[in-house]
Amino acid sequence: MYYYAFIVHKIPVGVFGASGYAGRELCALIVGHPALELAFATANEQRGTRTRIGGVAVDFVATEEAPLDSAELVFSALPHGASKQWVTIARDRGLRVVDLSSDLRPGNGCEGIPYGLTEIARKEVRDAQVVANPGCYPTSILLALAPAVSERLIAPGSTIAVSAASGVTGAGNSPKRELLFAEVSADFRAYGVGNTHRHLNEMRATLSQWGADADLVFTPHLLPVARGILSTITVETSEPVADPGSVWRAAYKGEPFVEIVDEPPALKDVVHRNVIRMHVMPLAATRKPTLLILSAIDNLVKGAAGQAVQNANAMLGLDETLGLPT
Amino acid sequence: MYYYAFIVHKIPVGVFGASGYAGRELCALIVGHPALELAFATANEQRGTRTRIGGVAVDFVATEEAPLDSAELVFSALPHGASKQWVTIARDRGLRVVDLSSDLRPGNGCEGIPYGLTEIARKEVRDAQVVANPGCYPTSILLALAPAVSERLIAPGSTIAVSAASGVTGAGNSPKRELLFAEVSADFRAYGVGNTHRHLNEMRATLSQWGADADLVFTPHLLPVARGILSTITVETSEPVADPGSVWRAAYKGEPFVEIVDEPPALKDVVHRNVIRMHVMPLAATRKPTLLILSAIDNLVKGAAGQAVQNANAMLGLDETLGLPT
Amino acid sequence: MYYYAFIVHKIPVGVFGASGYAGRELCALIVGHPALELAFATANEQRGTRTRIGGVAVDFVATEEAPLDSAELVFSALPHGASKQWVTIARDRGLRVVDLSSDLRPGNGCEGIPYGLTEIARKEVRDAQVVANPGCYPTSILLALAPAVSERLIAPGSTIAVSAASGVTGAGNSPKRELLFAEVSADFRAYGVGNTHRHLNEMRATLSQWGADADLVFTPHLLPVARGILSTITVETSEPVADPGSVWRAAYKGEPFVEIVDEPPALKDVVHRNVIRMHVMPLAATRKPTLLILSAIDNLVKGAAGQAVQNANAMLGLDETLGLPT
Amino acid sequence: MYYYAFIVHKIPVGVFGASGYAGRELCALIVGHPALELAFATANEQRGTRTRIGGVAVDFVATEEAPLDSAELVFSALPHGASKQWVTIARDRGLRVVDLSSDLRPGNGCEGIPYGLTEIARKEVRDAQVVANPGCYPTSILLALAPAVSERLIAPGSTIAVSAASGVTGAGNSPKRELLFAEVSADFRAYGVGNTHRHLNEMRATLSQWGADADLVFTPHLLPVARGILSTITVETSEPVADPGSVWRAAYKGEPFVEIVDEPPALKDVVHRNVIRMHVMPLAATRKPTLLILSAIDNLVKGAAGQAVQNANAMLGLDETLGLPT
Repeated sequence: MYYYAFIVHKIPVGVFGASGYAGRELCALIVGHPALELAFATANEQRGTRTRIGGVAVDFVATEEAPLDSAELVFSALPHGASKQWVTIARDRGLRVVDLSSDLRPGNGCEGIPYGLTEIARKEVRDAQVVANPGCYPTSILLALAPAVSERLIAPGSTIAVSAASGVTGAGNSPKRELLFAEVSADFRAYGVGNTHRHLNEMRATLSQWGADADLVFTPHLLPVARGILSTITVETSEPVADPGSVWRAAYKGEPFVEIVDEPPALKDVVHRNVIRMHVMPLAATRKPTLLILSAIDNLVKGAAGQAVQNANAMLGLDETLGLPT
Repeated sequence: MYYYAFIVHKIPVGVFGASGYAGRELCALIVGHPALELAFATANEQRGTRTRIGGVAVDFVATEEAPLDSAELVFSALPHGASKQWVTIARDRGLRVVDLSSDLRPGNGCEGIPYGLTEIARKEVRDAQVVANPGCYPTSILLALAPAVSERLIAPGSTIAVSAASGVTGAGNSPKRELLFAEVSADFRAYGVGNTHRHLNEMRATLSQWGADADLVFTPHLLPVARGILSTITVETSEPVADPGSVWRAAYKGEPFVEIVDEPPALKDVVHRNVIRMHVMPLAATRKPTLLILSAIDNLVKGAAGQAVQNANAMLGLDETLGLPT
Repeated sequence: MYYYAFIVHKIPVGVFGASGYAGRELCALIVGHPALELAFATANEQRGTRTRIGGVAVDFVATEEAPLDSAELVFSALPHGASKQWVTIARDRGLRVVDLSSDLRPGNGCEGIPYGLTEIARKEVRDAQVVANPGCYPTSILLALAPAVSERLIAPGSTIAVSAASGVTGAGNSPKRELLFAEVSADFRAYGVGNTHRHLNEMRATLSQWGADADLVFTPHLLPVARGILSTITVETSEPVADPGSVWRAAYKGEPFVEIVDEPPALKDVVHRNVIRMHVMPLAATRKPTLLILSAIDNLVKGAAGQAVQNANAMLGLDETLGLPT
Repeated sequence: MYYYAFIVHKIPVGVFGASGYAGRELCALIVGHPALELAFATANEQRGTRTRIGGVAVDFVATEEAPLDSAELVFSALPHGASKQWVTIARDRGLRVVDLSSDLRPGNGCEGIPYGLTEIARKEVRDAQVVANPGCYPTSILLALAPAVSERLIAPGSTIAVSAASGVTGAGNSPKRELLFAEVSADFRAYGVGNTHRHLNEMRATLSQWGADADLVFTPHLLPVARGILSTITVETSEPVADPGSVWRAAYKGEPFVEIVDEPPALKDVVHRNVIRMHVMPLAATRKPTLLILSAIDNLVKGAAGQAVQNANAMLGLDETLGLPT
């Protein structure tokens, strides 16, 4: 015999830019969220069409037609460059905003906006009207590096080498020849090479704010998978760190969305979940003490929509785990 | 109107261990080679069976039944550990040998055997009775690093960080759960982490022989593709190298199997071909001058069977490109 | 502001054969089920090991060590042939049983056991002590054909042609060479051809019980995907059926796990969900009136573990949708 | 010791529409052909650009700038609808033409043009100025059915049920959302359903010309692979055919590009090769005698560019196998 009951007053939220991969993921999370409801979803090219997300009919409207007053908070998944103006409009109308674009992130000339790595900036996020939701690569790399910075493990002046690989949803769903199945399948390649990827500034600015004295070298790659980012990070340390796992575990103690594990994480372990899974180990047989950090996330969940909902939960005073798949 | 004619006396060669992915690739290359013919192919578990490779019927025999005297040269694609004894037997019978296993490679206690990176050791290979064919990862990494070593570009005492990813044929065709389609598909993960991969010794010993004063950090990954290895290499240099492409081009001038290109190489560019394709560039915005080298090979061709045939061509006085797909 | 509360007494259930793909899926569904709890999970080869499923630690025991009395119902995902004896033992100890093997299904000499296509046999399932859970292909094909049979649409004596394709998890997770990534990737082929697949008897016996007078021709194929079955079915009808969609909709009215849609279903629409999605249409330009039925399921959910839980829900008097992803 | 020599006068040929998947495959085959040379390659959107195909630099020109007089034969891989006018222009200039579009194929209102299933229409092809190269699905299905028709095996008035699956290159390389990796990967679905695919007319008109008295039901599917078509065909026969393999072998005796095999063909067996591989068997336990025919081709080779070169070889009096991968 069992029994359960719900009495829920749901909080209305909107989504700008709901037709991309991150926007759809957001709508699905909101539709399945026990304390949020979808007030509107904008998609300019598909305005006037209805789609089904998580069993619920969603009508896309143009962004300029969005009934802003019907929502308490809005997520913007608009493209980089196009997002900022709508974030400003929503903010000026009194809404709280989680911006998934890069427009307001560190290194892009917009200071004073909390950078929503929730585990790191929980306090600022809770009180903020606007939060800049981190990029997918930065989430996977900065959360992996944060304990090394806070524990002052990194050898001053050293170079952190990051090789990362992302599934194709990271590149969006605009039709481009190089993203066709016949092109991506059975292939693997680097892109945005030579420290030119637009996420690099975001990571450097953040590491600098955190007081890290190290260079960052970042090479992203395109994987023949739909979802997931794996980052492979080499960090020279001032002293040998015999048991780095315990350091990372202590740093993230009690965090529901951080998993420190004893073997290399796989994309399979994290897809469709709002977690970051990490493995840290000392490298054998190197003259300078060096750590290897491997981190895996789902680029659309912990790397985008999931972390955005996590931030919204914090901003709205909800349990941070509500509506999020672990 | 056209006309052509062949008069060819083919050289008989044998294959030990012909049923694995590398062994089959070897047989296919031999069957299609204008100057070699397949004298025998051994496969203990499948002895007595006939298979078709490249349109030709091949009868597998047990290794101990191989008619050694019918061949002038033998390729050994036997497993690591099992190869050495058969290489010795063949050598003592007067055959020349290309050993694809790791048994005779640098760092494994067998000095004096030429290490068949053909582009680097052509002279020793030509005169050798036995050649140790390099591993797939070492081929992709050492050929990428060779110009940096020979031109003395590498900052003394620095650490070379290598993140590499291989298709699943690199793990062989023995049935293992972790190599099932349902496990590998949509996944990506590191393995052999912490500088523990058995190829590391081979690379370190070779770099040391070459006089390089640098550490090597190596993290391999398993890709959801059948073939190909991509290596992403970060090298600190003593001085900035403004145009590294021209340095690498000069180092490999005239090499038919080395392609220095101006954009990141992709697996698609190299699969089923006996080439290594590389891109070298300075990294922007780093305090210490740093190069990024990206290299791509087909692990079964340039990383195994193709390079083995290239070595055999050199040993037998043939044009090095004969029978090899470029 | 919102509020919710749970008071749940969970029903303990066990799983025989929990280490295969279907067994793991079952454990995951049970762990996430609001009204069931996992009393034990058996896996002979992995007995004594602990694994994490859905965030919960599960300790595998040998089947003969399973504490049967701790459970009210047991699911058997043991291999075909090995399941029957354990079903009998559990039944004799008073447990209710859902058997996912083929041992007790129609056509295999075990009459009198309800065949758990829940939508068709709900009443018998509710009252049964033992239910034979249908195979994956039969679920996708029989649910697609049921309205054609019950509405007597099929031309008497005609041949129903079924071409179906399954993801590789349908073949289990025992390591076999032909299921390696390097073999399955980029490939597609038929298997079990010539009306020899072991699921054929199950389908024929069921159609015969339903009173259908038609032959069945069935060709399964192996898809390079992890999950999902798509069945493509051609049915000659006695008379033209102008709007077959409405007939199928009426037949499955109110069914929470059946979706009749207006375009061809895709595997993407159904994976990780306990649904069957179907599209029915008349074929143009044929002399004899002919219907095309396309049906898609997740072979591990609606085709195995999900339908098993659906049956268990019915047997235990629970809401049939509890704990099942739609 | 070996020796070989070439004296070749190559025949210049051009390609209209060289930038699509079939056009590129054509250029690659021509570049590697011992008796053909590429006189020009047109690609309107990419005119003025240079690309490398098979190690040779190819300069794309606009179709209206093509130096027609420099070629003896032209292949048109222009889109359906756009091809016909350029075929006419080339023909009027005295060139011989192999048209890969559907514009001149049977059922499209253009009678009198040989339909280039080379094995069936070799004689007409040799003498023709213009040949309509068959579509990929029709090639795989009509070559599979031809012996059944010529041997009068098909039950009069019966329905031939064809379920076929194609890799994504069959849909071309124009960027469309539904062909993105993230959409196609892990998916499978039917399209062009209800006997509406544009290849159906081509097949029906051909079967009718051959005198077959049977209906055709055709359901194509999109596979998550780059290349290959597998057709699964059910044919009711007038009488049981005990050993259909021997009938098909006799029908295609001596054909270098037709393989009749004893087990179901796989895409892996045929990709990158100009062959059709077929398996024919009687279906067990059916009231009406029924054959299952499985056929596999590479849609870009035997289904497009390879068959086009095969036709050109025949037209130009060359050995039909020249330059074609078997």
